[in-house]
Amino acid sequence: MSLLPGIAHPRDLDRLSIRELEALAAEIRTFLVENVARSGGHLGPNLGVVELTLAIHRVFDSPNDPIVFDTGHQSYVHKLVTGRQDFTRLRSRGGLAGYPQRAESEHDVVESSHASSSLSWADGISRAFARTGRTDRHVVAVVGDGSLTGGMTWEALNNISDDNDRNLVIVVNDNGRSYAPTIGGMARFLNKVRTTEGYRSLHQGSASLFGRLGPAARAVYRGLRGGTHGFLSRFVNNEALYSNLDIKYLGPVDGHDLEAMIETLRLAKSYGAPVIVHAITEKGRGYAPAREDEADQFHAVGKIDPLTGRSVSSAASTSWTDVFAAELVRAGEERPDVVAITAAMLRPTGLQPFAQRFPDRVLDVGIAEQHAVAASAGLAFGGLHPVVAIYATFMNRAFDQVLMDVALHRAGVTFVLDRAGVTGPDGPSHHGVWDLAMLQSVPNIRIAAPRDAERLREVFHEAIAVDDAPTVVRYPKGSVGDELRALERLDDGTDVLARGETPDVLLVGIGPMARIAVEVADRLRAQGIGATVVDPRWVVPVARSIVELAAEHRLVITIEDGIRVGGVGTRIRQVLREAGIDTAVDELGLPAEFIDHAERDEILEDAGLTASKIAHDVVAQVLGTRIPIARPSVGAEHDWADLGDEEPPADAPPRSRADATDGEPQPRGR
Amino acid sequence: MSLLPGIAHPRDLDRLSIRELEALAAEIRTFLVENVARSGGHLGPNLGVVELTLAIHRVFDSPNDPIVFDTGHQSYVHKLVTGRQDFTRLRSRGGLAGYPQRAESEHDVVESSHASSSLSWADGISRAFARTGRTDRHVVAVVGDGSLTGGMTWEALNNISDDNDRNLVIVVNDNGRSYAPTIGGMARFLNKVRTTEGYRSLHQGSASLFGRLGPAARAVYRGLRGGTHGFLSRFVNNEALYSNLDIKYLGPVDGHDLEAMIETLRLAKSYGAPVIVHAITEKGRGYAPAREDEADQFHAVGKIDPLTGRSVSSAASTSWTDVFAAELVRAGEERPDVVAITAAMLRPTGLQPFAQRFPDRVLDVGIAEQHAVAASAGLAFGGLHPVVAIYATFMNRAFDQVLMDVALHRAGVTFVLDRAGVTGPDGPSHHGVWDLAMLQSVPNIRIAAPRDAERLREVFHEAIAVDDAPTVVRYPKGSVGDELRALERLDDGTDVLARGETPDVLLVGIGPMARIAVEVADRLRAQGIGATVVDPRWVVPVARSIVELAAEHRLVITIEDGIRVGGVGTRIRQVLREAGIDTAVDELGLPAEFIDHAERDEILEDAGLTASKIAHDVVAQVLGTRIPIARPSVGAEHDWADLGDEEPPADAPPRSRADATDGEPQPRGR
Repeated sequence: MSLLPGIAHPRDLDRLSIRELEALAAEIRTFLVENVARSGGHLGPNLGVVELTLAIHRVFDSPNDPIVFDTGHQSYVHKLVTGRQDFTRLRSRGGLAGYPQRAESEHDVVESSHASSSLSWADGISRAFARTGRTDRHVVAVVGDGSLTGGMTWEALNNISDDNDRNLVIVVNDNGRSYAPTIGGMARFLNKVRTTEGYRSLHQGSASLFGRLGPAARAVYRGLRGGTHGFLSRFVNNEALYSNLDIKYLGPVDGHDLEAMIETLRLAKSYGAPVIVHAITEKGRGYAPAREDEADQFHAVGKIDPLTGRSVSSAASTSWTDVFAAELVRAGEERPDVVAITAAMLRPTGLQPFAQRFPDRVLDVGIAEQHAVAASAGLAFGGLHPVVAIYATFMNRAFDQVLMDVALHRAGVTFVLDRAGVTGPDGPSHHGVWDLAMLQSVPNIRIAAPRDAERLREVFHEAIAVDDAPTVVRYPKGSVGDELRALERLDDGTDVLARGETPDVLLVGIGPMARIAVEVADRLRAQGIGATVVDPRWVVPVARSIVELAAEHRLVITIEDGIRVGGVGTRIRQVLREAGIDTAVDELGLPAEFIDHAERDEILEDAGLTASKIAHDVVAQVLGTRIPIARPSVGAEHDWADLGDEEPPADAPPRSRADATDGEPQPRGR
Repeated sequence: MSLLPGIAHPRDLDRLSIRELEALAAEIRTFLVENVARSGGHLGPNLGVVELTLAIHRVFDSPNDPIVFDTGHQSYVHKLVTGRQDFTRLRSRGGLAGYPQRAESEHDVVESSHASSSLSWADGISRAFARTGRTDRHVVAVVGDGSLTGGMTWEALNNISDDNDRNLVIVVNDNGRSYAPTIGGMARFLNKVRTTEGYRSLHQGSASLFGRLGPAARAVYRGLRGGTHGFLSRFVNNEALYSNLDIKYLGPVDGHDLEAMIETLRLAKSYGAPVIVHAITEKGRGYAPAREDEADQFHAVGKIDPLTGRSVSSAASTSWTDVFAAELVRAGEERPDVVAITAAMLRPTGLQPFAQRFPDRVLDVGIAEQHAVAASAGLAFGGLHPVVAIYATFMNRAFDQVLMDVALHRAGVTFVLDRAGVTGPDGPSHHGVWDLAMLQSVPNIRIAAPRDAERLREVFHEAIAVDDAPTVVRYPKGSVGDELRALERLDDGTDVLARGETPDVLLVGIGPMARIAVEVADRLRAQGIGATVVDPRWVVPVARSIVELAAEHRLVITIEDGIRVGGVGTRIRQVLREAGIDTAVDELGLPAEFIDHAERDEILEDAGLTASKIAHDVVAQVLGTRIPIARPSVGAEHDWADLGDEEPPADAPPRSRADATDGEPQPRGR
């Protein structure tokens, strides 16, 4: 290492020769492998964009020229050259985020990890620059070929082509992969470009033809891999990729050839109009274990041995995903109408075993959640039962389709939401905390949250048996843990997990929070407070048993790992009130806030969703020392309008049903 | 009229000659103008697809071959030839729906009016047919050029091109219009095809060239309007539209030439693979007033004089849209950074005056809500303040972008949601009832619901003053009504609209429901019950005054015209409980159900959201004859799991804070 420590700002790259930049690229690859091996993170994507990122920072002037990374997991190199070289706590609390983060650097623009948004951002920013006369500023969007399968990019390109008078450079980082190989007609087209004889035979053939185009074109040619005809037709006539959109196109260019990339980007910069630079890169470049990984080129890894690429984590325990994966295969064997849909996440969502067993019954639609859901409504209309496997956070992309295509048409579609609740190190756009609040407003929907592997198997089979409404099975990231047996299953399917000696508190544990609810009950028992713990398994619609049990208790606590505002706790409370049960209800959940990267346990602790904190608050409330249960310690800042420094109404009469009289309310100021 | 009454089923078209079909088309146009003039409805789009629809039904065999209409407002002709010729109560309760509706006919498939979904449906259905061996069945999607600006169609086409082994015909109904002229690079491309000399010079030129292609091609040629080269390159090489997706393409063909359409569709049907038929049509065809209407060719009309096309409605009163339109212009004059965004709805959302005044500061992105929102985040990053004007129901398409692009990045973007709440005759997919529940879960968001024109002006200006968070201003369809003055404005901006002699009931009226709340208070006063009515104006975050006032009352009633499940009423109640205020709260709103087409008042009546019904229930509750306030009469069927015929727990102790003791709970069975 000699060059990297000297790069504190992108402009420090200006001093380096091409050879030095190449040496820096090699240093960076070594750095990435060593550091990501220690912390885990996105390795393959970042190894693929080392030269591409250096070239962009060499040609453009961030932050004056904003650089927008689509699905920012490929921003590690960008971090390294913008003053962030301490990767020791990458993706841990207090350490660097795994995605761009504005709080870290003025060089970061878009933080969200949801794909296909970069072109819309760049469209907006470049229009704003043009409209306000800042014509010296450029916007660069870096987008993978996988992201181009998302419809937002089509919407954006349609608009970008409509107004040519601004500085906008779209760098297509084409590695032929999203997580898995990119699918669809677009991918086939790109693949044709990548694999043509002409592209392979670089530096062979008719260089002389390009002499006529002048120095800039000659320089570009060095990195261009198209055959003569391909090059001419693309460069001169702007044909091929998105040809009918009439956006200027440069490429394809070798994304690992620094000189070619720099020259191509300079040419693009000089256009004064939107232009696409099509760079061909290799995911996992320069790291043998990644290149040899057929599945996803080490897209995202845990802790690994940097030499061999082998995982050094302790023996992996069974994950929720594993349980679903096996159960889906079983369902496929029993029911020929069951088909599986994924949006470019075949392996991460556990569909791989099903795909191997039933290759004709799995459909990867690309990073296209809207289409995945609407097409599923069509599949159901055609007599099949689609299982849409998706991360909870990406379900937000297709709310309208769940509502208008699936639910309105009473289509029997099962959504399996992995990574629901708090996920941890991937930060605010990866937490799956909106699904319960969002989906419970969908008419006819049925939502299950299993607490353990056995319940996941049960509810999944119950879900795919519903053929006239959307069903949802949602579960968290990580290990599924041991079985949590019920004392009793009530008639309506509600499981009773604990019973206290006296019916003081009813704890309703949603999914994995049932385990915490049982711990709370244990702690309450030690304080002489009786607690009943139930797991409704199906949280929407609300189980009758909860209503009956609530009537017998003095206090109801619902615990969900979704946001509290508009969450299923509020629905339980509405159903209770409809039934004339006015037992006090506290709805515990996550604050309606964006939650930074940290360990799952750290985040739950912050939100007050631990057994000790909940038990402490229940004791205080039941014993009358506090009314009501305090809210989670994170996130109340926007619940009070114009509160200023003023205290909440101190003279408000305590009205809790929990028999407390002298407690202090604990709202939060700003 | 002589032919139309004889058409009870699509197969009745088989008896008719081309000349008779042409006569039928003329009859249908007359029928449409006369009937839609009486009821109001979508006139221009249906006049444009008369021949196209007849040709589809002649060639394909619905319902065996499902026909999927994108944004089904162009399905009137389809209704006429599938046994539905009583248009007397079109779009009224008990009459035909303005969109396809499965309950009406087995020929209807997709009911939603949200654009760009048809290709996804057709992809799913055709895959299901192929996978289950029903290779004799075809799927036809009818999609407008406007809908193609939506990203879902890109996602779908990318997938459709990926599996060629199924029967799928995509009819692009290209009239160059969505509501307004279709925008973007794609539209420019289509326009080039439409306006080429070759297309205009039909029947001139080199017909002989096509002799070699055989009878089918010759027949198609009659309707093809491309020049020789255009035709050859498109037909033989599958180039041009979506060329890189490698989907077969036929066209362009004159969508009003029945013979050409029929022959082209027959050719398409015989392919055995997905194929696009590009038909050129004219919106408002055959009706002079529509053709002469530059703005939108009578896209949707109220009651009109069929001869002149002039409105026969009583003098239009000022609408909410009008108020916003004027205020936006004023804001634009005061603030050069204010820009306006619409998704193909410039006129309906009231942006036209702003566009005339500031043509450079308005952006129509096409039917592309996701892009509209994400690009707005970019515009805000670039220093502008975007106002995104959109129908509330279409906001559902961009929840993820509001959350991840705007809110996460603390972008100052103002969303103006028109047609919020119950809209009426356009049916379930047009009601704007999900916005409050959905958006209130977005961190940092601020949501205003004005009750009258003056308040709309106020909150709009307050909204655009916020530069670090998303703001929402939502209001209903129709007339804004008279000013509803406050008795007093409290410190935090809450308006007190009425005060009772005794502090019995606090009524919180959200937006237009404030007017109903005042009526409720009047009725309660007559019964000796004192009611305070407040309009918080800003409903999220919850105003401090509501907390303070709630503490002084015996019962709180929140009234919103959004769905009750997860609605803002639940948030008010959460904030009260956090503050230690356990006054009983009833959250009134719309049921979490799909609401059929009917008048707004009929729907509110059904939902129990009328002053008389609410007052009646409050009286019963306060006087102790019933606990609690009964739920809306519509929509409880999915709130109870496994309830069967069983009664709710009769022995549940009444616990209402409203001092009632002997009431009967009134939950609903299935």
